[in-house]
Amino acid sequence: MCRGDDPSCADFEIHHRQFVEDMARERRAFLASAFAAKGGIAAMAAGGVALPKKVSAVTRHHHLPANADTVHWGYFSRNLKPQLEIDSGDFATIETLTHQASDDHERMIEGDPGAESVYLWTKDRKGVMRRGAGEGDGKGLGVHVCTGPVLVRGAEPGDVLEVRIVDVTLRPSANPQFRGLAFGSNAAANWGFHYNDFLTGDTREVVTIYELDATGERNWARAIYNFRWPEVMDPFGVKHPTIDYPGLPVDHALTTRNWDVLKGVRIPVRPHFGVMGLAPKEADDVNSVPPSYTGGNIDNWRIGKGASVYYPVAVSGALLSVGDPHASQGDSELCGTAIECSLTGTFQVILHKAGELAGTPIEGLDFPMIETRDEWVLQGFSYPNYLADLGAAAQSAIFQKSSVDLAMRDAFRKMRRFLMTAKNLTEDEAISLMSIAVDFGITQVVDGNWGVHAIVRKDIFPT
Amino acid sequence: MCRGDDPSCADFEIHHRQFVEDMARERRAFLASAFAAKGGIAAMAAGGVALPKKVSAVTRHHHLPANADTVHWGYFSRNLKPQLEIDSGDFATIETLTHQASDDHERMIEGDPGAESVYLWTKDRKGVMRRGAGEGDGKGLGVHVCTGPVLVRGAEPGDVLEVRIVDVTLRPSANPQFRGLAFGSNAAANWGFHYNDFLTGDTREVVTIYELDATGERNWARAIYNFRWPEVMDPFGVKHPTIDYPGLPVDHALTTRNWDVLKGVRIPVRPHFGVMGLAPKEADDVNSVPPSYTGGNIDNWRIGKGASVYYPVAVSGALLSVGDPHASQGDSELCGTAIECSLTGTFQVILHKAGELAGTPIEGLDFPMIETRDEWVLQGFSYPNYLADLGAAAQSAIFQKSSVDLAMRDAFRKMRRFLMTAKNLTEDEAISLMSIAVDFGITQVVDGNWGVHAIVRKDIFPT
Repeated sequence: MCRGDDPSCADFEIHHRQFVEDMARERRAFLASAFAAKGGIAAMAAGGVALPKKVSAVTRHHHLPANADTVHWGYFSRNLKPQLEIDSGDFATIETLTHQASDDHERMIEGDPGAESVYLWTKDRKGVMRRGAGEGDGKGLGVHVCTGPVLVRGAEPGDVLEVRIVDVTLRPSANPQFRGLAFGSNAAANWGFHYNDFLTGDTREVVTIYELDATGERNWARAIYNFRWPEVMDPFGVKHPTIDYPGLPVDHALTTRNWDVLKGVRIPVRPHFGVMGLAPKEADDVNSVPPSYTGGNIDNWRIGKGASVYYPVAVSGALLSVGDPHASQGDSELCGTAIECSLTGTFQVILHKAGELAGTPIEGLDFPMIETRDEWVLQGFSYPNYLADLGAAAQSAIFQKSSVDLAMRDAFRKMRRFLMTAKNLTEDEAISLMSIAVDFGITQVVDGNWGVHAIVRKDIFPT
Repeated sequence: MCRGDDPSCADFEIHHRQFVEDMARERRAFLASAFAAKGGIAAMAAGGVALPKKVSAVTRHHHLPANADTVHWGYFSRNLKPQLEIDSGDFATIETLTHQASDDHERMIEGDPGAESVYLWTKDRKGVMRRGAGEGDGKGLGVHVCTGPVLVRGAEPGDVLEVRIVDVTLRPSANPQFRGLAFGSNAAANWGFHYNDFLTGDTREVVTIYELDATGERNWARAIYNFRWPEVMDPFGVKHPTIDYPGLPVDHALTTRNWDVLKGVRIPVRPHFGVMGLAPKEADDVNSVPPSYTGGNIDNWRIGKGASVYYPVAVSGALLSVGDPHASQGDSELCGTAIECSLTGTFQVILHKAGELAGTPIEGLDFPMIETRDEWVLQGFSYPNYLADLGAAAQSAIFQKSSVDLAMRDAFRKMRRFLMTAKNLTEDEAISLMSIAVDFGITQVVDGNWGVHAIVRKDIFPT
């Protein structure tokens, strides 16, 4: 029987309406319920558009650790070998490592076998040779340690992959000296918005190390010390006067650590994944820094526990990767980084097949859309699909061409389309509503392809 | 005795430290308390930097109605005759009228003597002849009906005027047919961000009328109808094919009203004043549309009940005006207007003399700063003082030169200075903190001088 997806069926309209109603009903039930524990974890459901009918009653819970074998560093690629294959509906606990852990080896790497294997770098070899989308070793075109990719069986271009973030936990320091604590690094780096605009002193990169309570008792972070980036000589003998390659081992015998920093200031903790997304189809190796239509380095702090992100699938199997974990970030990520802090996430993936999208909020989705408990957050970029928009030189051009103005334009257009398709408003209704009940914020101004998001509350719409 | 403001005093340092401590103590007590009812109103205190010692124990409560005699339409001016003179510490209840009331005369003007006197326009005369900063009748260079100005005795350039918004109420419709209701108008106008970027149909201006519950029982607005802007012939016989002059009387015999609009959508109500600010010193008559360093048309919805705004005083007496009342607005005010809806505010003004600012969060303040119960909100603009920045042609040039990118730069610099001066952080501390705990949002992209605000929570700092 036609399930509402076969326009040649004589009763297509009736079937399709029934299908849409069923989806809405299932979705309300899903959001209202505390999702039953499955696969041995107490999973709390994130929101979702609807549970497609194909989701198996039996879901599996997978685990993907982060180590030199399971991560790809600094790039997305449609050619990467999957580290895990899962079905729609399955859960996966995925470890992620910050690419700035080597700013404080003692606190963020030492004693942690996964981190040690990734960060291994001697005069003879690197645990992960390639770090970026450039030739050879990556040439620093990309920075994020990404775990994955995860292949979702049955995912094809045109589908939408929903990734529900069921839980997020801090990765505790493995050094017994720092039991119960976790640490993160914030680099005010050369790609920051402030970098050519200092008020005092000379141009500099400054790294601040933050401490968090890994037990979850204390919900704020505090600064421990900061230091000015020294010229770092890497184990292969190359000098790095600035932070121009990821994972450079900082030797604190060569830094001056200032322990009197942000005394008494409590940083609200908002754990989230700076990078989460799918492999794009436009190129083989894609720098992990600029976000795009399949997600990636969106750097929106709302991509945390309880949120779902919907991505258009661009390649078979979707190829989901997660990385760039953040403990806290403000809208704009002004200095170039967040509190970069290793996290472990538990995710549920739901595959929405192309034929099931009509009449749902994700019909025609061609960008990463975030759903939280209370809000829809639509992500705009200076260039919605910069790899296609900027041609052959896109991966370098994007760093010259971004602006908040362009990203605002894109966020406006995306929200308008969402209100018109998902909420059945006319263009005039959508435009009025956007002026009085949608908030536009600056996601980031440091990732090549700058971001503006548009937020609308879910409870303003009729049920 | 030196009160900590006389550097020639032998004990200046001790006195000054004592003064700063006293201010902090008073301020904490003020914020913690429900401010005692005075002058017959139950006033709830907004936050404040401190109560300066000069505030009299006896405060007065003034009332300034809105009518053709008490408003100035479309411009600020250092030459305007004050409508009210008050002392620091006094309260004033000030009525404000939306400049879009004539979009629905029946609901927003009829039976309301104040509104009728302002909107009076026959073939022979206008209740308020001048509407804007241009020559003659204003030539449409400015749109907002502003009540005032209010002269604050003793205010001089270099001082800071704090305006506390103690209460805000909707102005009920005076038409018995609409008892208990209030109304507002949202115009998707030619100056909107969307205007040259329609998805469907031809280029158009559309006005939507919204209904609110004036009793306060219902905290959301709903759309009643919308209509496409017709060519309006004003009573002097001039045709207006677009909204190019404020207060044009719409004749609904010539419009087609669509009553099927935004059905079931509940707009969250956030009453606030789009325009609140002081007379600038740079020019005689200043268009009310572009906001600047003395405030004006900031269009930040956080300027509502419970908030304080701090303004640098530019001319003797400060000359405070209030207008452009909004029931609801989103960050960006995308289509050019909010729900423009007449409101009445109760304000308390506190004058902070130049000599008392050292060591306080408002030391050196040269822009409008907002304080809410929980946050500091620093307002950036494309051009911080466009009248000075853009030279003789500033009032026209500003409409060609704005960008969100420039406003982001300004908001960054203001927040950095605030953190360094008010919170005693080093530049490196401030920059790290801005990246992890400050949110940058897009205030508006429609007022000539575009706005970006930076928000930091107050509770992250040590007490």
